[in-house]
Amino acid sequence: MPSICRVISAASIAEPFKEEISKGIASLGFKPVLRAFLANNDPSAREYAAWTAKTATDMGFNFYLEEVRQAHLEEAIREANNDRTVNGIMNYWPVFPNLQDDLRLQQLVTPLKDVEGFSSIFIENLYSNIRYFDPPTNLIQSILPATPLALVKALEHVGVYNAVLDRGTRLYGKTITIVNRSDIVGRPLAALCANDGATVYSVDVSGVRRYTRDRLQLSCHRWEEVDMTMRQAASQSDVVICGVPSEQFKFPSSSLKDGAVAINFSSAKNFDKDTIKEHASIYIPTIGKVTITMLLRNL
Amino acid sequence: MPSICRVISAASIAEPFKEEISKGIASLGFKPVLRAFLANNDPSAREYAAWTAKTATDMGFNFYLEEVRQAHLEEAIREANNDRTVNGIMNYWPVFPNLQDDLRLQQLVTPLKDVEGFSSIFIENLYSNIRYFDPPTNLIQSILPATPLALVKALEHVGVYNAVLDRGTRLYGKTITIVNRSDIVGRPLAALCANDGATVYSVDVSGVRRYTRDRLQLSCHRWEEVDMTMRQAASQSDVVICGVPSEQFKFPSSSLKDGAVAINFSSAKNFDKDTIKEHASIYIPTIGKVTITMLLRNL
Repeated sequence: MPSICRVISAASIAEPFKEEISKGIASLGFKPVLRAFLANNDPSAREYAAWTAKTATDMGFNFYLEEVRQAHLEEAIREANNDRTVNGIMNYWPVFPNLQDDLRLQQLVTPLKDVEGFSSIFIENLYSNIRYFDPPTNLIQSILPATPLALVKALEHVGVYNAVLDRGTRLYGKTITIVNRSDIVGRPLAALCANDGATVYSVDVSGVRRYTRDRLQLSCHRWEEVDMTMRQAASQSDVVICGVPSEQFKFPSSSLKDGAVAINFSSAKNFDKDTIKEHASIYIPTIGKVTITMLLRNL
Repeated sequence: MPSICRVISAASIAEPFKEEISKGIASLGFKPVLRAFLANNDPSAREYAAWTAKTATDMGFNFYLEEVRQAHLEEAIREANNDRTVNGIMNYWPVFPNLQDDLRLQQLVTPLKDVEGFSSIFIENLYSNIRYFDPPTNLIQSILPATPLALVKALEHVGVYNAVLDRGTRLYGKTITIVNRSDIVGRPLAALCANDGATVYSVDVSGVRRYTRDRLQLSCHRWEEVDMTMRQAASQSDVVICGVPSEQFKFPSSSLKDGAVAINFSSAKNFDKDTIKEHASIYIPTIGKVTITMLLRNL
């Protein structure tokens, strides 16, 4: 069977943003400084740090990776918050064994240097569909967390966002299934897409939720539990986005609507690369390079 | 209820084509000649002729309207076929009371001057998904009939065609309901959209047909009767296109999928202009100006 599916690389999605950011830096007259803290022993975090370093340096940033002990991290962040030569701060997660400690750490980074978009103000804005940091002046855009933002940019790149419609409504009429409801990606992504007008089916082991703005009549999304399976949700969707961190999970390709868009953001391969191409019109197998670009764009 | 629907005018869709055509004419060094024959007494045909005249002249064509008796029309067309100063020929339909006579007349116009796209060779190419007049050289595009082409251009304009995909597959994943199955518009449009990858529900009083290329595995579309109502077809569709020539017919707005695209090509108003805007993301109330522009583009 000849494949009619277009496979789109993260690099090709990131490219125009990298150019835009490099030009922006060149016009600044100085190299913005990103200070990244590595306080865990996860080899994949180290790999990710090396990749961020290369991308940031190539694009004209000054990137400083600082390895710190967990016990010294709070102090290091406070110092970076107050250091005028530091423009952006990021961490490699998880830091602590306890999620609560990581969440508290995220709020320690000043919003003015938070490139990850985890500050409460940004998260609240995201869920409430508030696009600016400084309403009602609205000169400074609210920062969005890098992976959900990368996935939004991927959806724009492949034409799921309809540029004919007004900003903030460009997903109206589209149905999107997101298999992952983590606080870090799946849940904010569901909210972002629903706020832009999509009907979103958010899937995790506990069940399926539908996110909607009710024909754009609500100022931001609401959600409800629905009695559907992942397959039923997917078969009605123009886009299926998977982020299940397990090599065991495979999305059943045959439940994709013919001609739909399939996107994987998990480090595991959630789609079977052969059968998905028999059904999808567009397949984006990874998103990591867009995520790093969005971190730097936030900076 | 605040309307979130964008109403798109035919003029705004036609505009970039008009500019392109005017530039093309300017670079030719002569004014192409369109000879149009009016052999009926239909006041709306006369109105249409006046409108074609204005558009053609504004864009730099020489437009000659010739009123002829039905009995003299064949001779007039033969003469125009052989007249080297005539570049394009068109008629205002219907000419004869009997459809068969009109169909024969359409085949009398040489394909090399047929701007309406009714020559058998063009129609066969359209249905067979053959894009060129001169295979295998493929230097000359096959002419498409003006109204179906205008509707394709409207779908491109509003982003239903996905420019990320290869040409010829850009509707893959989209579902389109077309209420009209005339030989002149609805049926060729269903074939064009299915050939470009869409699933098309073609609706007329006799029932509903589904047109598909079976996940692009077929080189051109096939169709089958399906046991569905217009409402069922519409509720699954990203686009509903209506062309019912009757003031009595109104498409039921509530059966449109929220956020879908609604397009009317009938001279009657097939959509209720208020309620359709509660459901559609995009509404195109008329297409006539695009049709005339496509006639001139064919020329």
